[in-house]
Amino acid sequence: MNFASDNTAGMAPELMAALSQANVGFAIGYGNDALTRDVERRIGEFFDHEVAVFLVPTGTAANALSLAHLTPPWGAVLCHENAHIMTDECGAPEFFGAGLKLIGLRGENGKLTPDTVKNAVARYSGHVPHQVNAASLSITQATEAGTIYRVDEIAALAKVAHVQGLPVHMDGARLGNALARMNVTPAEATWKAGVDVLSFGATKGGAMAAEAVVFFDPARAAGMAERRKRAGHLLSKHRFIAAQFEAYLKDDYWLTLARHANAKADALTEGLRAVDAKIVWPVEANIVFALLPTVLDAKLKAAGAAYYVRSNAMAGDDVAIEPDHVLVRLVTSFATQDSEIEKFIGLVQRG
Amino acid sequence: MNFASDNTAGMAPELMAALSQANVGFAIGYGNDALTRDVERRIGEFFDHEVAVFLVPTGTAANALSLAHLTPPWGAVLCHENAHIMTDECGAPEFFGAGLKLIGLRGENGKLTPDTVKNAVARYSGHVPHQVNAASLSITQATEAGTIYRVDEIAALAKVAHVQGLPVHMDGARLGNALARMNVTPAEATWKAGVDVLSFGATKGGAMAAEAVVFFDPARAAGMAERRKRAGHLLSKHRFIAAQFEAYLKDDYWLTLARHANAKADALTEGLRAVDAKIVWPVEANIVFALLPTVLDAKLKAAGAAYYVRSNAMAGDDVAIEPDHVLVRLVTSFATQDSEIEKFIGLVQRG
Amino acid sequence: MNFASDNTAGMAPELMAALSQANVGFAIGYGNDALTRDVERRIGEFFDHEVAVFLVPTGTAANALSLAHLTPPWGAVLCHENAHIMTDECGAPEFFGAGLKLIGLRGENGKLTPDTVKNAVARYSGHVPHQVNAASLSITQATEAGTIYRVDEIAALAKVAHVQGLPVHMDGARLGNALARMNVTPAEATWKAGVDVLSFGATKGGAMAAEAVVFFDPARAAGMAERRKRAGHLLSKHRFIAAQFEAYLKDDYWLTLARHANAKADALTEGLRAVDAKIVWPVEANIVFALLPTVLDAKLKAAGAAYYVRSNAMAGDDVAIEPDHVLVRLVTSFATQDSEIEKFIGLVQRG
Amino acid sequence: MNFASDNTAGMAPELMAALSQANVGFAIGYGNDALTRDVERRIGEFFDHEVAVFLVPTGTAANALSLAHLTPPWGAVLCHENAHIMTDECGAPEFFGAGLKLIGLRGENGKLTPDTVKNAVARYSGHVPHQVNAASLSITQATEAGTIYRVDEIAALAKVAHVQGLPVHMDGARLGNALARMNVTPAEATWKAGVDVLSFGATKGGAMAAEAVVFFDPARAAGMAERRKRAGHLLSKHRFIAAQFEAYLKDDYWLTLARHANAKADALTEGLRAVDAKIVWPVEANIVFALLPTVLDAKLKAAGAAYYVRSNAMAGDDVAIEPDHVLVRLVTSFATQDSEIEKFIGLVQRG
Repeated sequence: MNFASDNTAGMAPELMAALSQANVGFAIGYGNDALTRDVERRIGEFFDHEVAVFLVPTGTAANALSLAHLTPPWGAVLCHENAHIMTDECGAPEFFGAGLKLIGLRGENGKLTPDTVKNAVARYSGHVPHQVNAASLSITQATEAGTIYRVDEIAALAKVAHVQGLPVHMDGARLGNALARMNVTPAEATWKAGVDVLSFGATKGGAMAAEAVVFFDPARAAGMAERRKRAGHLLSKHRFIAAQFEAYLKDDYWLTLARHANAKADALTEGLRAVDAKIVWPVEANIVFALLPTVLDAKLKAAGAAYYVRSNAMAGDDVAIEPDHVLVRLVTSFATQDSEIEKFIGLVQRG
Repeated sequence: MNFASDNTAGMAPELMAALSQANVGFAIGYGNDALTRDVERRIGEFFDHEVAVFLVPTGTAANALSLAHLTPPWGAVLCHENAHIMTDECGAPEFFGAGLKLIGLRGENGKLTPDTVKNAVARYSGHVPHQVNAASLSITQATEAGTIYRVDEIAALAKVAHVQGLPVHMDGARLGNALARMNVTPAEATWKAGVDVLSFGATKGGAMAAEAVVFFDPARAAGMAERRKRAGHLLSKHRFIAAQFEAYLKDDYWLTLARHANAKADALTEGLRAVDAKIVWPVEANIVFALLPTVLDAKLKAAGAAYYVRSNAMAGDDVAIEPDHVLVRLVTSFATQDSEIEKFIGLVQRG
Repeated sequence: MNFASDNTAGMAPELMAALSQANVGFAIGYGNDALTRDVERRIGEFFDHEVAVFLVPTGTAANALSLAHLTPPWGAVLCHENAHIMTDECGAPEFFGAGLKLIGLRGENGKLTPDTVKNAVARYSGHVPHQVNAASLSITQATEAGTIYRVDEIAALAKVAHVQGLPVHMDGARLGNALARMNVTPAEATWKAGVDVLSFGATKGGAMAAEAVVFFDPARAAGMAERRKRAGHLLSKHRFIAAQFEAYLKDDYWLTLARHANAKADALTEGLRAVDAKIVWPVEANIVFALLPTVLDAKLKAAGAAYYVRSNAMAGDDVAIEPDHVLVRLVTSFATQDSEIEKFIGLVQRG
Repeated sequence: MNFASDNTAGMAPELMAALSQANVGFAIGYGNDALTRDVERRIGEFFDHEVAVFLVPTGTAANALSLAHLTPPWGAVLCHENAHIMTDECGAPEFFGAGLKLIGLRGENGKLTPDTVKNAVARYSGHVPHQVNAASLSITQATEAGTIYRVDEIAALAKVAHVQGLPVHMDGARLGNALARMNVTPAEATWKAGVDVLSFGATKGGAMAAEAVVFFDPARAAGMAERRKRAGHLLSKHRFIAAQFEAYLKDDYWLTLARHANAKADALTEGLRAVDAKIVWPVEANIVFALLPTVLDAKLKAAGAAYYVRSNAMAGDDVAIEPDHVLVRLVTSFATQDSEIEKFIGLVQRG
């Protein structure tokens, strides 16, 4: 019953196999190998667009490198107040961005609305050079609340941003989960909707440590090679990070993995609803937020269930949490088994 | 005939196997798993000392994190002018260190002497607050010239540094190769000789991407967890980086790998000497620098030999390079085959 | 009718005279002159405490240097959401602090309460190393709302901060105005109440460009000389910045100046109240916030009155602003004349 | 006998007077006042070119802001090894430039040659993204050795730089002294010779604290207003820094002041040569380097002469310093009196 995070799972079998297959002979280092060239091409095909790709080992690196590249040190990144960059990266964007500022905005269901962004841009514009001005927008797909931005929602946000000259970054640590839920192409969910730079995550989806910064306008990537290197994020034995992506994308393996994770989240949700547990936000990816009695929480933990209790602050104004309840986050992955879910729901049912 | 770098080799078999073995079940992320705990303990045993350990995916990260932790932004790191941190990390120490300064010093055979360090400390001391002052010393083991610091040499350098209050960092990207050459313990070659913080590399030795920042005084590591996270160097599926180190250290596997690499470098050296090629620096690890005729260099490349020609600047005052010769660097690894060496020497012999 | 800011005034006469007096003969540069030594001593006397003093030309420098010195790059500074460091320094604290984070907190009348700080510390504690943790507290005296913290309020805030290990910084750009209003000593209003580091401003009070970073624990100032120099804030002809402070403190001149400014703010307030204008926040220093009809605002501007209209966002939840009204900020200074106030009130009265 | 530095002098009388004159009435802050507008226009006229001007209080700020603006964090600034930015600014360029690197180059008489720059550019080019690449050139006028670059020398250096895409920065802390010596216009000595951005110093020339960053291509200045503000270098009572420049430029006052200083340096030189003291570098501005017997040095100091002894390292290969001699630096200013020189020479003569 491990629902602590999708990063508690290991590597998906095909990715593990890909590492073995890549481990043959010599390959020139630092991303100049054939496998890397190939995976860069494949990522371009995946998104049906010319791209500049930079593979890195962590999502924090992908996000921080992207935001530092899009935002001057005296600029602000607009994002949701619960965004990973805001709450879980220990100030990486600020560090990489030489002191840029993150402005955390409220939004129901973990999502920003065009009006919220418009107001924030208005507030953080002008009064130059005294005030840090809004300089980029970062949205998370799927969100930290386990919801997803639909294509038209992304497009509406991007429109507001672009009108003001702000490029749009998408933290796609769980992009696979979001795509699996929607009947749209990767292109439609990203650049066609206005995303300029994407942190395309494979780690949570089944890789060991593989994330890609994808620029849909390669010209914008000038200097990014140096930025990545200087941050220590250019792997010498680069073929192994490429191999992970290659296997992740091959034969829509990413989709198989994401669908599995999402289906398990749906099963959890269904099971919880059946026993009248309150589900906090729409379950649209592989994350379920539920309100559970404090007593039950203790029993579940005692029975070996692994998951995190989130602070009430995260719930914000979206939901009232009764004093004897806690907000729990349950994350599924490609590795989640039906038996885990059944056991968990059984425990909840017994209360 | 791949002598371009020890990072053109893949993973050593036992490390590849370790990844598979680690890929079972769930494990809590971000280094809180049992395997990480275990490997931290083992690294302590390896060095026979209490340690604080931070695993990261690249050597650049290990070095930059270490130096930023030891040196205030207004301090200078003393190092050899050809040190990796000086020439091949695109300013990572300066970035991580909020603008600290590297002072590159000359030294024969890629090594610093106590006098050189003493003079540099004298030059970069006082005149406060106008001048950046020497604040730490970084030495490389094995050096970029393929030589090694003997234990008494390290101790002499550390003594000079410590007298002035400078902590000592060792870039041990090839520490295994150095240890394999000397008949000393890891403890003798590091903290017993005065090393305070070590970048302990496994990648060049046979790992995929695994380096450890080792503090021999754990108290000095306060804040390092945040520093690593904020730099994007805390892997979520941390067990896999731990697994590499576990296998690397188990049953002295690192030593087997390093001895192989060193032996191949010796074989290359012997072969080159036999055909009167000039060897530039003592071959004490797994790197051979030789002077080859420009014409021969072209032939070798045409025949498929992979290696780098280094600028004459690197040779410095140590050696005169005739105009029709080039300085070539040949690096061996755990994966180097005798057949490669024989073929290479054969080509050199035919001229 | 210039109420735009207290920095639209020039230099108070005694400070201008002090520059002339200091302009005799040679003086060793960079703060090693006798006048600087003397003013450092006088500042210690002023606060009745041993201090380490660093004079700088701007308040932004004083604040950013202080906060960077008190807060690690992975730490957060807690402050009011309308604090100058948050809204008017273009990210200087983040720049000087290598990417530290500011957490803007709400608070009535421009002031923070102990509960607000306690909650923020609770929210930004733990979850290490993923989350930036609260690491220092910065309060502004007088506040941006023109209110002041009473001694017991400062003490209560400092107590909450200190319990959690957070040092307390005071942005005292208008400390003189606050002190002039309260019947307390400089010591009582600062270190005795728990302030650790103070940005002591003289510029708004009547200097040309003179601010002092004051450490009440000199040991905490280690490295600050280098930090200031490296930020370009160590004046070479340092005697002139010292001369300003000397004259500012001599014979309680600062108090004379501050009382004048405060009295003019009181006169403005009285005049506005007499004509039924809504005063937004208690007028406790030299700043008056009032709600004026949009039509009147235009007339006043047309008649030559200089002041700023502030965004409704600043008012926050404290006050409702009717659609046909604007929030205006009126700042008085040592140079404000009765005639200006009379003329302004007259215009308001005529509506 | 104060020859310690030109910053030990106070303000030149006309500049002091200008402060008084500027101290009338109210003026909008932060550089939006009429006087600032006027001085910006005058600086354009002075250089006979459209310019973007940013006034700051210190030369370190002017240099660091300029270099950070011209150089990416992964770029290197080429400069003389004895340049002020290299030895006396405590790493300000590295701090402002988010960790950029300075490459100190050797050069006789404190000056760089085109060949030296060409070689450095060759060494610090390519090997991307591993190596920091040369990204800008900074030259000092007059140099730290008291020599000056002639117009054709600047042009030759700029040509080498521009061919490689490196913009040229001039640290003109003593530009007035250099111009006073040469029979050329400010335009000829700067943008016409290829200077892109200039730190135009008035402080050493007779101001209190006034330096201007001058962009000869205003488009290149985008973002500089924010950069200055965020560094704490935008003075609120900006009129007073403008007033200093206004007076400095009016009626060629700067030239009068610089000629005085230069003439006094010439007199010193003549006097020293007459008594057989060794002058180290050509005296082309207001700085004299001489070799004096250690015994004499002690006598001079005892008699009240103020000046600095420089380390032998500064002399470099240019000059051999006998063991019983020291390298002394004597700086004159607008305030230097004939009587001081006569007394000093008299003391030297008596030995």
